[in-house]
Amino acid sequence: MNENKYFSNLTDRERAIFEGGISMGSLFHQFIGTPVNIDSYKSLEKAIEESILLQPAIIKVVVKLNPDLIKQQSGSMGYTTLEGKMLYVELTTKINDYEVTTCISYVEELDYPLMRILD
Amino acid sequence: MNENKYFSNLTDRERAIFEGGISMGSLFHQFIGTPVNIDSYKSLEKAIEESILLQPAIIKVVVKLNPDLIKQQSGSMGYTTLEGKMLYVELTTKINDYEVTTCISYVEELDYPLMRILD
Amino acid sequence: MNENKYFSNLTDRERAIFEGGISMGSLFHQFIGTPVNIDSYKSLEKAIEESILLQPAIIKVVVKLNPDLIKQQSGSMGYTTLEGKMLYVELTTKINDYEVTTCISYVEELDYPLMRILD
Amino acid sequence: MNENKYFSNLTDRERAIFEGGISMGSLFHQFIGTPVNIDSYKSLEKAIEESILLQPAIIKVVVKLNPDLIKQQSGSMGYTTLEGKMLYVELTTKINDYEVTTCISYVEELDYPLMRILD
Repeated sequence: MNENKYFSNLTDRERAIFEGGISMGSLFHQFIGTPVNIDSYKSLEKAIEESILLQPAIIKVVVKLNPDLIKQQSGSMGYTTLEGKMLYVELTTKINDYEVTTCISYVEELDYPLMRILD
Repeated sequence: MNENKYFSNLTDRERAIFEGGISMGSLFHQFIGTPVNIDSYKSLEKAIEESILLQPAIIKVVVKLNPDLIKQQSGSMGYTTLEGKMLYVELTTKINDYEVTTCISYVEELDYPLMRILD
Repeated sequence: MNENKYFSNLTDRERAIFEGGISMGSLFHQFIGTPVNIDSYKSLEKAIEESILLQPAIIKVVVKLNPDLIKQQSGSMGYTTLEGKMLYVELTTKINDYEVTTCISYVEELDYPLMRILD
Repeated sequence: MNENKYFSNLTDRERAIFEGGISMGSLFHQFIGTPVNIDSYKSLEKAIEESILLQPAIIKVVVKLNPDLIKQQSGSMGYTTLEGKMLYVELTTKINDYEVTTCISYVEELDYPLMRILD
């Protein structure tokens, strides 16, 4: 990549953390609000997974949408829209030899979906 | 639906046209910008299709992303992001017995993706 | 507009309704999720208003975000994100001499934001 | 913040970089696609600025949209939609005493908008 020189002020670890943050922020706003229900969530999981995996520096992605929550929030209309707390995503970014795994998951104690770095 | 009384000023055809417009405007902003390439576009097509089909009044959906354009725009990064002119979508809305098919497709003569009603 | 011939199957009223639906669906997905609080909602109202007004066929726009709801949902973080039920938007589309006003507003009885045509 | 314990595996600098990445990824997908022209871009700049500034850890934001590019891309319709290369954003995140400034700007040599850390 030609862009390496723009990152000479970061260690590989710092850059992997930065790319993880960008990808998490992006996917959150890209997919939140999508209509989903218990029959369609598997195809949405797959589409999110494949689209994240295309991005530079990303080498592994796990996407799990919470079927219980999707079912429970699907009221009389038979569907709901994707919300942050339904999301579990792990994505691994790699810069040179350094790998970092970034995660978004609903944290009960905080009552919101938290993005963080896993060790 | 309890909402019927809010539409007493529209014919079934007018309401089917209105719902078609809403769904087209929504899906456009929901999915434009998603990373996509020649290997992932099928899963994205499926996810868009299934998510639109959940919405009230919609009884049929066809989604075709343009693989040639996706391939051509996937530069050195190996992927591109979904743009309006890559989209072909037909969706059919039904209000009581009246069905209307709304379409978005790239129109060469206009050089932009046009949303319109098919007969 | 060169696109007129693609709408020869619609009356002016039907096309004004269609354009109203598209604009409502678009703005909903464009702006939902934006961070907002009691100090910033006026600038967000203005930006939404000005951006909708640019679109073809739209001649008038009113945007009111609900300050009570914004205040009430702004928890310990001091802000919230824009939700459908905080939105009141009226937009008027005009095709030739025919004007239609489309509205989104929270309807208590339905407990969701409803898009409809005002008379 | 109660969430501090979830970040015990990061230095203050790393966490400031992570939050900067999240905010950049978020705003990109939130605002790209918004209709804009030479008369409205100032109100959009202000709305983006105020909305970013609400987010935790962010202490300073500069948003400049490129008026020349907006003018040039506003064709016969009199407006365009916001694209990545029209964006210049600097945002400063602070974790304890450590401040980091993250930036997105169009880089001519790469021909795309690059997100990076400024020193």
